Amino acid sequence: MERAVDELRSLLGEDSVSTEDEILKAHGYSEWSSINIERLPVAVAFPSSTEQVSKIAKICSKYRVPMIPYSGGSSVEGHFSAPFGGISIDFMEMNGILEFQREDMNITVQPSVSWADLNAKIKDSGLFFPMDPGPTIGGMVGTNCRKSSAGYNLNSLFVGSEGTLGLVTEATLKLATIPEETGVAVIAFPTIKDAASMAVDVIHKGIMVGAVEILDDVQMNVINRSGATGRKWTEKPTLFFKFGGTKVSVADDIDQVQQIAKRYDTLDFQFENDPEKQKRLWSARKEALWSMLALRESGSEVWSTDVAVPLSRVAELIELSKKDLDGLGLFGSVLGHVGDGNFHETILFDGAKERAMVEHCVHQMVDRALEMEGTCTGEHGIGLGKKDYLQKELGDAPIQVMRAIKKSLDPNWLMNPGKIFDPKDK
Amino acid sequence: MERAVDELRSLLGEDSVSTEDEILKAHGYSEWSSINIERLPVAVAFPSSTEQVSKIAKICSKYRVPMIPYSGGSSVEGHFSAPFGGISIDFMEMNGILEFQREDMNITVQPSVSWADLNAKIKDSGLFFPMDPGPTIGGMVGTNCRKSSAGYNLNSLFVGSEGTLGLVTEATLKLATIPEETGVAVIAFPTIKDAASMAVDVIHKGIMVGAVEILDDVQMNVINRSGATGRKWTEKPTLFFKFGGTKVSVADDIDQVQQIAKRYDTLDFQFENDPEKQKRLWSARKEALWSMLALRESGSEVWSTDVAVPLSRVAELIELSKKDLDGLGLFGSVLGHVGDGNFHETILFDGAKERAMVEHCVHQMVDRALEMEGTCTGEHGIGLGKKDYLQKELGDAPIQVMRAIKKSLDPNWLMNPGKIFDPKDK
Repeated sequence: MERAVDELRSLLGEDSVSTEDEILKAHGYSEWSSINIERLPVAVAFPSSTEQVSKIAKICSKYRVPMIPYSGGSSVEGHFSAPFGGISIDFMEMNGILEFQREDMNITVQPSVSWADLNAKIKDSGLFFPMDPGPTIGGMVGTNCRKSSAGYNLNSLFVGSEGTLGLVTEATLKLATIPEETGVAVIAFPTIKDAASMAVDVIHKGIMVGAVEILDDVQMNVINRSGATGRKWTEKPTLFFKFGGTKVSVADDIDQVQQIAKRYDTLDFQFENDPEKQKRLWSARKEALWSMLALRESGSEVWSTDVAVPLSRVAELIELSKKDLDGLGLFGSVLGHVGDGNFHETILFDGAKERAMVEHCVHQMVDRALEMEGTCTGEHGIGLGKKDYLQKELGDAPIQVMRAIKKSLDPNWLMNPGKIFDPKDK
Repeated sequence: MERAVDELRSLLGEDSVSTEDEILKAHGYSEWSSINIERLPVAVAFPSSTEQVSKIAKICSKYRVPMIPYSGGSSVEGHFSAPFGGISIDFMEMNGILEFQREDMNITVQPSVSWADLNAKIKDSGLFFPMDPGPTIGGMVGTNCRKSSAGYNLNSLFVGSEGTLGLVTEATLKLATIPEETGVAVIAFPTIKDAASMAVDVIHKGIMVGAVEILDDVQMNVINRSGATGRKWTEKPTLFFKFGGTKVSVADDIDQVQQIAKRYDTLDFQFENDPEKQKRLWSARKEALWSMLALRESGSEVWSTDVAVPLSRVAELIELSKKDLDGLGLFGSVLGHVGDGNFHETILFDGAKERAMVEHCVHQMVDRALEMEGTCTGEHGIGLGKKDYLQKELGDAPIQVMRAIKKSLDPNWLMNPGKIFDPKDK
């Protein structure tokens, strides 16, 4: 192990390999994570090019040292923890745009590029990256959507493999055209079930929404307290719709959504078409989690989790989960991307007793999602935290297929070992 | 091999396993294919359930007999040919709808369901399967788009693996809502390059088109000769646009397309909003290949191929390919799904000398596509016919990864062997 670290130092330079305690802790432990372990990586490497990453992998392979990719560190399921020690590979210095294929509507970037920077830099081209990810980048990589039926879809296999098959050093992202007109509709409801049901109705109707998000009363309260939007919102379960297109089509979309809203006993229907106000509103929505943490009066730990279920079950599951969450008596909230059947819970807590309560509540939600033929995670991934759920969701055969694939590409089990599944059944 | 066939007969019954010469030929040879080989499968099995398919796979594994899945038989690259003999598994009896999850907007089907039947059967639900595949089903399977980040994306790995990793017995398809209003715009241009350029402009503008297809003068002539649309079209390079939405949004889409068309010296701009006429027009477009074959005066063989390139290069490649095609002096045409950068060539020919000319022409097109950072196939797949191109497109490392994955899941190389890549480099 020491020889591996020495070789890494002579490859990257002293400053680009750290064994400092604080750096090791920052790369093996996270206060946002539902799961943490004692062990830390033995060193952190900061490569600045694909060539360096390739050489790091060769050194690690030679000395049979585990490799754990790290990018942003927003994982809540222990993705970058080091249960078998090894080298954490932090991509923070690889944050550039490599090539902008403007006419092809693609852009090739390094893993640690910031989405906000990316869209700011290409703004004048009339294009943007339409995904609206969380506040940090994490290990998410986009896909190169150029159509192809040439051989196995290795792209899709590596995306979502959580660093257990290889290290991603570049990604080509598909861009969209910035719409001429955008609009945000905000509708408050008496119950979270009504809000979720209306979102499902809009999807069923086939209205093209850029996003449809559900926020509970707690989230709306946090947005008001943050003061970021310059406006007081009704503190009730609320849907946020994002529209984009021409002036005519956005007006038509809003009109259709209003027609559907008439079926419900809505409390408030606001429409915002001023771009600056839309931006503030949407950023308040995106920063709700961080605002929650900033505003907390009690609770020093946080559990953040997600599930996804088929569209027909999402309203029911959100309602049941919200009830359980309220029953805890802790500061916690529900937020969902209803169009995908996907939603998140974030709960603040203190100490072992509260942790056990939260764990029980979260497990109940995941179990229900699986009973509804859903999945144990829609966005966060498996990491260390959800391995048992993956086994429960898929059963033995698919896990064995995944294991066989990993073994064929990583025979010494060095790529982010211990994540997603174990080498053998327990 | 004989014992394997005997066991299959006692499993499936005498009528569901055939060794008749004509049946074997129909499952190992195709007159539509650019490549055919001498060898045929030794038997064809017709399973009627997933359980039977699983038992067939066990028998074949026991006797180390290759398995070649067959569904529809529309391959043009030798996907279902049997270079190592073995059993052809024809899914024709597995053509049912297994479950319709209406509120989830999903449907679970068996591999040989017909798309036309499928949409007819679910019409009253207000939903439809929006893909518009070729006249036969082929080995195409849809994807279950329920969002998940749970483990490796085995779905995407198996889709496109051409039967070399496993046998697909069910697929869950994502459905869309039937739009309130649909429309088709048909625009003729003096040159194929103008037509392709305008299609790219529409994509760049971000207009939501259901489909954008380019047809050359030959295809338009074939549509006129077929008489199916009850109307004479200008026999020049033509774009077909499909729109869907509300009355307001379809009118808005057409308006935007008309604005873009003003930049070009268009010959004809027709709009069709009568649903019955739209259907006839679109089906004429879909049946153009078969009409071509029916109308042929000479040419007993057909070569059909496709490539895809980045959006910025598609107009240039279509223009160059059309020039080469016209230079052959044979009956051939170009047809493209321009939005994906994907287009097809179909050429009729007779005898070895013409075959050599056609082969040279096709190879030139594929080579150009690869030089433009495109792919050797957008839809047809690799099969036997494009293995060398796949190697050329990807290089050694990705092929070695694919080989390792196949070996891990099919150690005896029994699943559709000889397709996509060989066990070793030549």
